[in-house]
Amino acid sequence: MSFPELIARKRQGAAHSREDLQLLVRGVSDGSMPDYQIAAWLMAVAIRGLTPDETGWLTEAMAASGETLDLAARWPDSVDKHSTGGVGDKTSLVLMPMLAAAGCHVAKLSGRGLGFSGGTIDKLEAIPGLRTELTRAELLEQVERLGLAIAAQSSELAPADARLYALRDVTATVDSVPLIASSIMAKKLAFRAARLVLDVKVGAGAFTKTLPEARELAEAMLAIGNGSAVRTSAVISDMSQPEGRAIGNALEVREAVETLQGRGPSDVVALCVTLAQALGVSGAASALASGAAFEKFEAMVEAQGGDPRSLENLASARQRRMLPAERAGYVAGIDAEALGRAVAGLGAGRLRKGDAIDPAVGVVLAAKVGDRVEAGQPLLEVHANDERRLDEALRRLPAAYTFSHEPVAAPEQVLAALPAPV
Amino acid sequence: MSFPELIARKRQGAAHSREDLQLLVRGVSDGSMPDYQIAAWLMAVAIRGLTPDETGWLTEAMAASGETLDLAARWPDSVDKHSTGGVGDKTSLVLMPMLAAAGCHVAKLSGRGLGFSGGTIDKLEAIPGLRTELTRAELLEQVERLGLAIAAQSSELAPADARLYALRDVTATVDSVPLIASSIMAKKLAFRAARLVLDVKVGAGAFTKTLPEARELAEAMLAIGNGSAVRTSAVISDMSQPEGRAIGNALEVREAVETLQGRGPSDVVALCVTLAQALGVSGAASALASGAAFEKFEAMVEAQGGDPRSLENLASARQRRMLPAERAGYVAGIDAEALGRAVAGLGAGRLRKGDAIDPAVGVVLAAKVGDRVEAGQPLLEVHANDERRLDEALRRLPAAYTFSHEPVAAPEQVLAALPAPV
Repeated sequence: MSFPELIARKRQGAAHSREDLQLLVRGVSDGSMPDYQIAAWLMAVAIRGLTPDETGWLTEAMAASGETLDLAARWPDSVDKHSTGGVGDKTSLVLMPMLAAAGCHVAKLSGRGLGFSGGTIDKLEAIPGLRTELTRAELLEQVERLGLAIAAQSSELAPADARLYALRDVTATVDSVPLIASSIMAKKLAFRAARLVLDVKVGAGAFTKTLPEARELAEAMLAIGNGSAVRTSAVISDMSQPEGRAIGNALEVREAVETLQGRGPSDVVALCVTLAQALGVSGAASALASGAAFEKFEAMVEAQGGDPRSLENLASARQRRMLPAERAGYVAGIDAEALGRAVAGLGAGRLRKGDAIDPAVGVVLAAKVGDRVEAGQPLLEVHANDERRLDEALRRLPAAYTFSHEPVAAPEQVLAALPAPV
Repeated sequence: MSFPELIARKRQGAAHSREDLQLLVRGVSDGSMPDYQIAAWLMAVAIRGLTPDETGWLTEAMAASGETLDLAARWPDSVDKHSTGGVGDKTSLVLMPMLAAAGCHVAKLSGRGLGFSGGTIDKLEAIPGLRTELTRAELLEQVERLGLAIAAQSSELAPADARLYALRDVTATVDSVPLIASSIMAKKLAFRAARLVLDVKVGAGAFTKTLPEARELAEAMLAIGNGSAVRTSAVISDMSQPEGRAIGNALEVREAVETLQGRGPSDVVALCVTLAQALGVSGAASALASGAAFEKFEAMVEAQGGDPRSLENLASARQRRMLPAERAGYVAGIDAEALGRAVAGLGAGRLRKGDAIDPAVGVVLAAKVGDRVEAGQPLLEVHANDERRLDEALRRLPAAYTFSHEPVAAPEQVLAALPAPV
């Protein structure tokens, strides 16, 4: 079968065979399928869809297109987690040490941030000296010894997905459930743990804006994972406002450390405990209270070249300024995407791949949805290193807030849990 | 609006504005829209379709993307014709001189053949010395003086269409009615005559295989032409067998000359007369009988550097071999595409752009659909310059024929006429 014949099949709404999708992924990987043919196929998929079988076959082929590692075979208690991304999401920094402290093996690969949402690797690199580029041998040795490592995804992980993703971004084919699900899961299957939990965010600050969309994406990913012998569960969590109170790399590490020390915001704690439960790991919650999770985190920082003592003394910004409430009322909404963009504008994020980022800048929320504020009381504190950017952020931030005269209920952090099949 | 936003609009099935399509064609023309974005948009169009308004706007923008000439403003009696292409289609060589002899101004731009169907320019170039690459000044001077010129399309004619066409060919988006219609009509609107007739072929040897498909394409093109002030009509003609009896460049010129001399096959004559009627040109049929059409043809050959005396002595192949009928019966079908491919295999056509072609080779049918043949009687004569290719053609050609024990009616050459609006 030629590439045009393969494209024609999907254009007509027919289903691909496993061999079709292996052929496609081979063409994507070895460069024999040109960008324009991939783009035409992506659009046909975005409109016609993929069956669960096709989605699974595509994912398996992409997972096999680069470096692979069977963590599950090495450690039957290996666990992994993926979040679809949000603003202020420091869950990995808290949950992975909790899981390691509860006795699991955790070899977590993470990405960098782009646009309005941050990335775990950028956050970790706010810790001076900490290395996230680990060789495979370093990663395995550290996980064997400590039970925990968090490292940057290499470009050799599911490289076929990377090529598809870059094209989706410029061809209006990003928001296709089977393409999103297979893109995420290809990396998870390439470095396959025995168990995986998916944190699917929903709300204005997330990729999926409504609960039904989030559920559809979660179910597509569950089908791929469980169909490929990774015991996969999912939690759907709220991103109608930022997670926790800190947004910005060093500020989020500080909040993660406070959470690991038992002083974290309740939404972060609730989500991490729920994710551990979804993985079927007992003892994770008590590892927060006992300090064992924080000890794991410190051990990881040290093993990866950082100094645990620096956690109390991370980079801080030269300027801090309060944003006061213009009127009294109940906070009814905080647009997480708008806050994410404002924080990126301060220098905490990248507009383009490769942009330098400033670890110190960000915001810390003083009020969250449901809180009562009086006129002039602080809504948040901006941390900045540049007067012009600070002014710009203060000018843009008020639009992210909505207020109500009537009391507003704080949103539930966990909206639904989709267990793994028994 | 960005290109991804424009693509997303069509992906969602929404309609483009005129400005959207001008932006798209500008991006296609100046190279600022990359191949992969064009490919994604083409696939979205192939699945979602275009409204008649969108098709018209796309066509106008493509027509304006390169060289343009308003023939209608110069000559209110200017006429043009387009055929969707078939095997043995020498209609242009006969019809255009008929129309010029009837007093019209004819500045016809034609293409070269590719694959199994021939091209008018390749056929004309079988006449020694005849030039088809005319400057605009040469073309206009000749049409002013003689009323007739047939010249090769320049790459400056609707260049946006050329880029779209090349991508459609490799992305499984060729067979989309609005894309086909706008591709054809962009060139016709760029060099716009006052009146245009479309010869839409239908059958195994044509691009459209069924009458409803042909009618849909014809109607899409009529809407574009008449919507853009070119008085456009269409004729749907049969391509269930080759047109006339000759297939191959010099052989087709010879048959065209015989037709211009009043000795042509009835299907070719019938089609040319019908096309002239559809244009509303009276006196075209009598120009065949009077010899006036042939005189125009000779004058054009001479004006473009050929010698009219050479028409009686065109290149002929070294080898001729009869293909005998294997059994007695009525010829029930002649697969025009299979014959076209066999003739291309003899060297008359191109498999790739730029391939050299042999003007002398081809086939001449001895029997057409409806004819009675006895076993051993000739079905056709092959003209070849290469023993190996001759054998290959003789081996492949019998499969193109089907026979019946019962008498079979000869197909009607003209299946439908779609007049221009009153």
